[in-house]
Amino acid sequence: MNMQTLHSLLQDVQSGNCSIERALAHLRNFPGESVPDACLDHQRLIRTGIPEVIYGASKTAEQIVSIAEAMLKRGGPVIATRVEREKAEILLQKLPHFHYAGAARMLICNPAAEDPTRYLGRTLVISAGTSDIPVAEEARLTLESLGHPVDKLYDAGVAGIHRLLSRQQLLQQAKVIIVVAGMEGALPSVVGGLVSCPVIAVPTSVGYGASFGGIAALLGMLNSCAPGLAVVNIDNGFGAACMAEAINRK
Amino acid sequence: MNMQTLHSLLQDVQSGNCSIERALAHLRNFPGESVPDACLDHQRLIRTGIPEVIYGASKTAEQIVSIAEAMLKRGGPVIATRVEREKAEILLQKLPHFHYAGAARMLICNPAAEDPTRYLGRTLVISAGTSDIPVAEEARLTLESLGHPVDKLYDAGVAGIHRLLSRQQLLQQAKVIIVVAGMEGALPSVVGGLVSCPVIAVPTSVGYGASFGGIAALLGMLNSCAPGLAVVNIDNGFGAACMAEAINRK
Amino acid sequence: MNMQTLHSLLQDVQSGNCSIERALAHLRNFPGESVPDACLDHQRLIRTGIPEVIYGASKTAEQIVSIAEAMLKRGGPVIATRVEREKAEILLQKLPHFHYAGAARMLICNPAAEDPTRYLGRTLVISAGTSDIPVAEEARLTLESLGHPVDKLYDAGVAGIHRLLSRQQLLQQAKVIIVVAGMEGALPSVVGGLVSCPVIAVPTSVGYGASFGGIAALLGMLNSCAPGLAVVNIDNGFGAACMAEAINRK
Amino acid sequence: MNMQTLHSLLQDVQSGNCSIERALAHLRNFPGESVPDACLDHQRLIRTGIPEVIYGASKTAEQIVSIAEAMLKRGGPVIATRVEREKAEILLQKLPHFHYAGAARMLICNPAAEDPTRYLGRTLVISAGTSDIPVAEEARLTLESLGHPVDKLYDAGVAGIHRLLSRQQLLQQAKVIIVVAGMEGALPSVVGGLVSCPVIAVPTSVGYGASFGGIAALLGMLNSCAPGLAVVNIDNGFGAACMAEAINRK
Amino acid sequence: MNMQTLHSLLQDVQSGNCSIERALAHLRNFPGESVPDACLDHQRLIRTGIPEVIYGASKTAEQIVSIAEAMLKRGGPVIATRVEREKAEILLQKLPHFHYAGAARMLICNPAAEDPTRYLGRTLVISAGTSDIPVAEEARLTLESLGHPVDKLYDAGVAGIHRLLSRQQLLQQAKVIIVVAGMEGALPSVVGGLVSCPVIAVPTSVGYGASFGGIAALLGMLNSCAPGLAVVNIDNGFGAACMAEAINRK
Amino acid sequence: MNMQTLHSLLQDVQSGNCSIERALAHLRNFPGESVPDACLDHQRLIRTGIPEVIYGASKTAEQIVSIAEAMLKRGGPVIATRVEREKAEILLQKLPHFHYAGAARMLICNPAAEDPTRYLGRTLVISAGTSDIPVAEEARLTLESLGHPVDKLYDAGVAGIHRLLSRQQLLQQAKVIIVVAGMEGALPSVVGGLVSCPVIAVPTSVGYGASFGGIAALLGMLNSCAPGLAVVNIDNGFGAACMAEAINRK
Amino acid sequence: MNMQTLHSLLQDVQSGNCSIERALAHLRNFPGESVPDACLDHQRLIRTGIPEVIYGASKTAEQIVSIAEAMLKRGGPVIATRVEREKAEILLQKLPHFHYAGAARMLICNPAAEDPTRYLGRTLVISAGTSDIPVAEEARLTLESLGHPVDKLYDAGVAGIHRLLSRQQLLQQAKVIIVVAGMEGALPSVVGGLVSCPVIAVPTSVGYGASFGGIAALLGMLNSCAPGLAVVNIDNGFGAACMAEAINRK
Amino acid sequence: MNMQTLHSLLQDVQSGNCSIERALAHLRNFPGESVPDACLDHQRLIRTGIPEVIYGASKTAEQIVSIAEAMLKRGGPVIATRVEREKAEILLQKLPHFHYAGAARMLICNPAAEDPTRYLGRTLVISAGTSDIPVAEEARLTLESLGHPVDKLYDAGVAGIHRLLSRQQLLQQAKVIIVVAGMEGALPSVVGGLVSCPVIAVPTSVGYGASFGGIAALLGMLNSCAPGLAVVNIDNGFGAACMAEAINRK
Repeated sequence: MNMQTLHSLLQDVQSGNCSIERALAHLRNFPGESVPDACLDHQRLIRTGIPEVIYGASKTAEQIVSIAEAMLKRGGPVIATRVEREKAEILLQKLPHFHYAGAARMLICNPAAEDPTRYLGRTLVISAGTSDIPVAEEARLTLESLGHPVDKLYDAGVAGIHRLLSRQQLLQQAKVIIVVAGMEGALPSVVGGLVSCPVIAVPTSVGYGASFGGIAALLGMLNSCAPGLAVVNIDNGFGAACMAEAINRK
Repeated sequence: MNMQTLHSLLQDVQSGNCSIERALAHLRNFPGESVPDACLDHQRLIRTGIPEVIYGASKTAEQIVSIAEAMLKRGGPVIATRVEREKAEILLQKLPHFHYAGAARMLICNPAAEDPTRYLGRTLVISAGTSDIPVAEEARLTLESLGHPVDKLYDAGVAGIHRLLSRQQLLQQAKVIIVVAGMEGALPSVVGGLVSCPVIAVPTSVGYGASFGGIAALLGMLNSCAPGLAVVNIDNGFGAACMAEAINRK
Repeated sequence: MNMQTLHSLLQDVQSGNCSIERALAHLRNFPGESVPDACLDHQRLIRTGIPEVIYGASKTAEQIVSIAEAMLKRGGPVIATRVEREKAEILLQKLPHFHYAGAARMLICNPAAEDPTRYLGRTLVISAGTSDIPVAEEARLTLESLGHPVDKLYDAGVAGIHRLLSRQQLLQQAKVIIVVAGMEGALPSVVGGLVSCPVIAVPTSVGYGASFGGIAALLGMLNSCAPGLAVVNIDNGFGAACMAEAINRK
Repeated sequence: MNMQTLHSLLQDVQSGNCSIERALAHLRNFPGESVPDACLDHQRLIRTGIPEVIYGASKTAEQIVSIAEAMLKRGGPVIATRVEREKAEILLQKLPHFHYAGAARMLICNPAAEDPTRYLGRTLVISAGTSDIPVAEEARLTLESLGHPVDKLYDAGVAGIHRLLSRQQLLQQAKVIIVVAGMEGALPSVVGGLVSCPVIAVPTSVGYGASFGGIAALLGMLNSCAPGLAVVNIDNGFGAACMAEAINRK
Repeated sequence: MNMQTLHSLLQDVQSGNCSIERALAHLRNFPGESVPDACLDHQRLIRTGIPEVIYGASKTAEQIVSIAEAMLKRGGPVIATRVEREKAEILLQKLPHFHYAGAARMLICNPAAEDPTRYLGRTLVISAGTSDIPVAEEARLTLESLGHPVDKLYDAGVAGIHRLLSRQQLLQQAKVIIVVAGMEGALPSVVGGLVSCPVIAVPTSVGYGASFGGIAALLGMLNSCAPGLAVVNIDNGFGAACMAEAINRK
Repeated sequence: MNMQTLHSLLQDVQSGNCSIERALAHLRNFPGESVPDACLDHQRLIRTGIPEVIYGASKTAEQIVSIAEAMLKRGGPVIATRVEREKAEILLQKLPHFHYAGAARMLICNPAAEDPTRYLGRTLVISAGTSDIPVAEEARLTLESLGHPVDKLYDAGVAGIHRLLSRQQLLQQAKVIIVVAGMEGALPSVVGGLVSCPVIAVPTSVGYGASFGGIAALLGMLNSCAPGLAVVNIDNGFGAACMAEAINRK
Repeated sequence: MNMQTLHSLLQDVQSGNCSIERALAHLRNFPGESVPDACLDHQRLIRTGIPEVIYGASKTAEQIVSIAEAMLKRGGPVIATRVEREKAEILLQKLPHFHYAGAARMLICNPAAEDPTRYLGRTLVISAGTSDIPVAEEARLTLESLGHPVDKLYDAGVAGIHRLLSRQQLLQQAKVIIVVAGMEGALPSVVGGLVSCPVIAVPTSVGYGASFGGIAALLGMLNSCAPGLAVVNIDNGFGAACMAEAINRK
Repeated sequence: MNMQTLHSLLQDVQSGNCSIERALAHLRNFPGESVPDACLDHQRLIRTGIPEVIYGASKTAEQIVSIAEAMLKRGGPVIATRVEREKAEILLQKLPHFHYAGAARMLICNPAAEDPTRYLGRTLVISAGTSDIPVAEEARLTLESLGHPVDKLYDAGVAGIHRLLSRQQLLQQAKVIIVVAGMEGALPSVVGGLVSCPVIAVPTSVGYGASFGGIAALLGMLNSCAPGLAVVNIDNGFGAACMAEAINRK
């Protein structure tokens, strides 16, 4: 409902092509529609370029099913994140068209085909260690489901910096880089010092003791002295993918 | 020193066009040059697209002068951030070509002229309140100094949400949006729900009590449920500008 | 036992209508009565307008049963909060007159009928997301059990601000608004900027990573720059209801 | 701009009484007006019942003067909070009609006369200690400036609980109670257990060591087991006054 | 091994009543004796007046059995704290003379009979709520096992302050008071303001949300403005009992 | 106003020796008396054995003078803590009978003479380092002012444990020990393992970096595995003295 | 790939003994080799003297097996840390040559024989309590597996300081001391004050309440005033062993 | 006073060469000597290999002078750390033989000459940025004063990793490396992955916002996945030097 459509609507009211009641209905009902326990934001894809995604962690199986079914009617990819395996197995019985990606804890239906023409370039997802792969996969699969061209480079942490330096060509080719790291979270700083594209840093909760569930990595990334770097929430692979999509989409 | 230049160098060694000693010198001395108390990273602009900037907060006036003079010889814009007024006044006597932007606490020399042809679009800098303006100005002036096209929209916080909604056209036109907010830090979430371009959230230390010097705003932004949003350090207007530059530069 | 009753008691002592022993008994035993593992505060309803409620989280089933039975004798609604389903099923066998509201984890007996004549107006309970509904329901059911007129508006978070703005009439009609939100906790600020009635903000532990179990939402709400807003503990739907009751009761 | 005014506007467009351009202007410019460094929210008083107030802590003297002058033209009380004495003395030279209340660090102009007919009752402001008085005064003077009937009871902390219990009549007469306390912050719990009116708890930064600038008091108040109690930010006497105004205003 | 015994030992060496080897053995082996996985401190009772107690939380059942058996040989009461019910049931099969106090999670053998002649007076254990009873019982049973005269007053929190005030006689008679409280932890301040004996405050982890596992109560108690009050660790009923023992023992 | 005095008062009312008005006055005015900005607790000495002390940190010079003058009329020692030198010099002009102890930042008037007959024994104040002496002196001078017999042992930290072990006789003679330590705060644990008397641990804010203003020392002391030890707030030498007074006073 | 090998490689290229392609391959592929989900750092042993070790906590059984098998081919000891018993039992079926050390949660294969000739001296591992033994064992077994000469002294905490002082000979003989302690973490300070060799402090998560999972011990150790002491992460026995190996290896 | 000297002393007592009184004096007075406000630990150099150093931050100028003069009599280097310039200028008037190193805030007298024969090798001090130099200098000058051979490499942070990689020869030659870094603190991890000698990581308080005075760097270093690395307190260059001394001294 931008200035142009508002202008058109007003013109239609003025010309009599649209009754006052119908105009009011447009203005009143447009952005949201209430269903039990949720209010679907049909307009989000138009406004933000990214469809609504189901955050599965604190929803019941019933809530996820009813929201997913409503979204399926709308068309396009449907994604649910943070769905534990037990819950996923219950859901797959009611949502047989979905695929469950266990490492990333995601349920996906109707993924888009990769469409490089809609993007400025490719996104590269790097993980510091093997333990960080679930979060990296959440980012990679979200992008893949949206049709975003995406590469990966896993287990390339700073304690063996040569592993990263030997792959500089891959770094240089990316339009966006997502770096996923736990423990000290130093990898994004090193990557950020090597490339000119934007770097999205994702701290993970991998670690123990003074990692404090990812706080150490988060603080490390926020304090990075490398330019062109921003941070998302701990373990938020999905959010990093959304940022990459917003940057890279033409 | 990428794969291509390395290949060329090796060819020159093989063909005798380059002595081993000269090749070693290239490989050894290339990326950094030590000066007293600092090691200038001449290669950073090439690697990352963003020139080295002087972080003035914990450097002595002498250190800033010597680094700034070395950078001036290299050409291009020279920027020092977090320079308090007292220190700035001392520096301006030795660095007469610099301009001091007091609100942003920045010293600037040789700013580039705006060059829209090098960018995908314009960056919009939004501040939630009047008190957040110094951080917003650090972002805006950094971008301006690099020749980046930039607009501003100040004092548009969520407690008067109509101020923001009435300026939606400005929001829709931006290629990148930087949102600067202290206290509860809610503005980036609202903006992120309205636009499709990437949003860079900058928490500020504005506030008191349970704002904990910006932690409240930082946490709010990290937990935003809006898509396409990433966060930089508290009060880090400069870092947000670098991220915007990395995203928006063609 | 206010100044008036004290005056009367002293008069009765002076006139001989009350023996010293009886006066001492009044002054000594009045406010509480000890039962095993608890000391019921019979006077609380008179003092505060709100009956004692059983906090079920760290009590054994035996303790809850004995306290609930004592309260039932007193009459009026009896409420137990934070009773997990397993414990509830055990309790329902011994307390067959109770109803278990699973989403809100509450056991309720003898709820009062809605009585608008005792209140200044209606209370509106808003939840930011579907995941925040259990806390919102704890607030709503507590109010409903006390006979308090209450409405709800669920899943209206700031990332789709239009969902809220389209329901402004509902907001304007409320005498008190309870806003329940997790993650960044920005919704109360936006609501607080739209209405003139008091807003009670309830942070929830919904989220992950840097939400720190609700701290992010709590800090966001405490730092809100919207006027007419106060905060209760994380996930404390019950406490928000008590505040609403204290405000709205004539 | 509610449903009714929107309906009228559309009727005017339909009937030709309002041009499309004028309608667009209404819809676009209504809620805010930009001035240098600020965007005054003329509508706030109408929306929330509380006028905009100048938060003085991180504004320059110039910014405060220009905002205050704009507000004075609008009429009604003008209040600036958190203005340190040095800044206040500069401001008073340019804003001679203002009064500076040093204990509360407030600048006030055009305070309203007390008008009990507009309120349900009186608000009582209690401070736990002498050191908490500045915050209590910020609350009391804000209310007084709005014409709100207000009483005070200072230095009544829990280590001498008889001081409070001897004033129960004052407690029982209040329609709203604001309790200001630092250190352990226990006073609101005790007050909340004695009265039936809503209690607004204000933690203060008074204390040292493990008071952590008011965190101890804040946490104590958030965890209060007394019913009918909600909390505002540390040292936020102004916010408590706004909540009291929202509750008590007819 | 104080100055006197050292003097005697040296005299014996000088007089030839003690060989150098035997003196060395005394000086080397005296205070501790190594057994598998532990080094029993036989001297602790002599040095500190309190026997070693088994901290059961992070020991295996095997470790607890072997330490308990070694202690039993020494005589006197043997106490193990923080033994969960499952572990206790395994242990009781191997340690049949022990009694398991489930509420306090303690295993006790050979408790001493109450002996008022060894103490200055009685210790009173107060709990704020029913949920705090397990910690209060850990304190009470530890004292009881040592023969310490002890009374209790449970469920007397500040939200119903009359419950406490009506029992002032009990408070006045105590030589030491242990106050156990979770949530806001305000009770010790109120008690500390009413009595002249030392008050030991024990924060508990009872609560949720911003109680942060007892931090809120701990901070409240540390910041108490009541005189004659000191604090032990969260949930440390045992430590409070040791402090009471040290104070009250003649 | 205990049970006995209440009984007497009621008898007097019954017998006509006391009018109702006079009885009400007793019951109403007894515990506190309001003066400007403070409510003196005349009863505290009777109730708690410790006179009210002026916490000087956040009071103005005017407030301190008026409170001190009121206390002087009452007789007995008058103590003000946390009075910085600048403020003290102003105060000494108006309060010429006071002595300023600069190291401890205390103002003292009418100190009591040492009276061993009123105490069970002597209190020993130990400081870990030279930097902890100001807090240790606050404890020692408070005790001395009350007539409490007190010794000191300064600069005896754990990094040179022999300094402490060589003074065991002094340790064994104390009835109460106050241990003041910053940095890692390990000294109280070592002392607590050597003695049978109660140990009061006082963390100090001495240190830097991860000492976090005394948090490290505070946590170390709270987690001490030594028996018979309790903790007061960071830098709270005064509070430790009050606890020692409560323990040691006959 | 140091200066010497680079020089040789360039000479070989110049002399024609090495083709450009082969030189590029050396420079590109040297340090790492990608396998599924991991990138083994074959060079680490050469670079750092310590072989790669499998951090088992957040890896699946499949990932551990595939990495362990790849490492076994390389020869030398293979170690996996933080493998819980359930996971270990699954792994032992596929990795029959491994030994599971349950107390330390480690899987070990091909441990080296002790070789004192490669070390400057012996390392001593001290634990403060029985509960700290698992972490101490992780350190001890890691060293033992590398052939490092190692001794142990368990259960020697500060609350019974004589246990430690009686073993000073053992302390004096060590070349490196690892001190493992939870709760208040005071033991490293005491040890550090007694010896001249380097002390590596390992905080453990043993404790409850204000130990905050090891933070109290960590802070205590970081703030130690003993010289010659450094700290590793909470529960990081493995890291302490690596530091000892780096120090002690000739 | 180890086992051997104790044996000798006892022999002397047995043989009559030493009276009991003299033996007691040895055992009692040996390790420490009390002077006003301090207890000098004459034995520390013998016990730990490192002389006592004056921590100047919270001592008065008088205290520093008296301690320094006592140390000067003992001979050897005398060092005071954390002496601000203002205090240093006062001290230099009374301690004319001292030199003030302003960048490191140290006062030094009688530094030892470099003596490589007493050390296994050289220590290398690396700083990440120019702002970290003061802490690096505290480490370097401490070592230099003890006669320890030391090199430096300043301004070599991870955002320009080539600066470090180009100096690998310097890294490989060191026997111990001290890495000083603020902000994200990532440099020690990178260095630790490149070398086989022990690495001592020193976080600094350089940074702003979410660096939280060095916490971010500290946590990053504690969570480093590089082997052979341990950490000292924030800004503790002196402590790092002591650890290097303990490691490197023969």
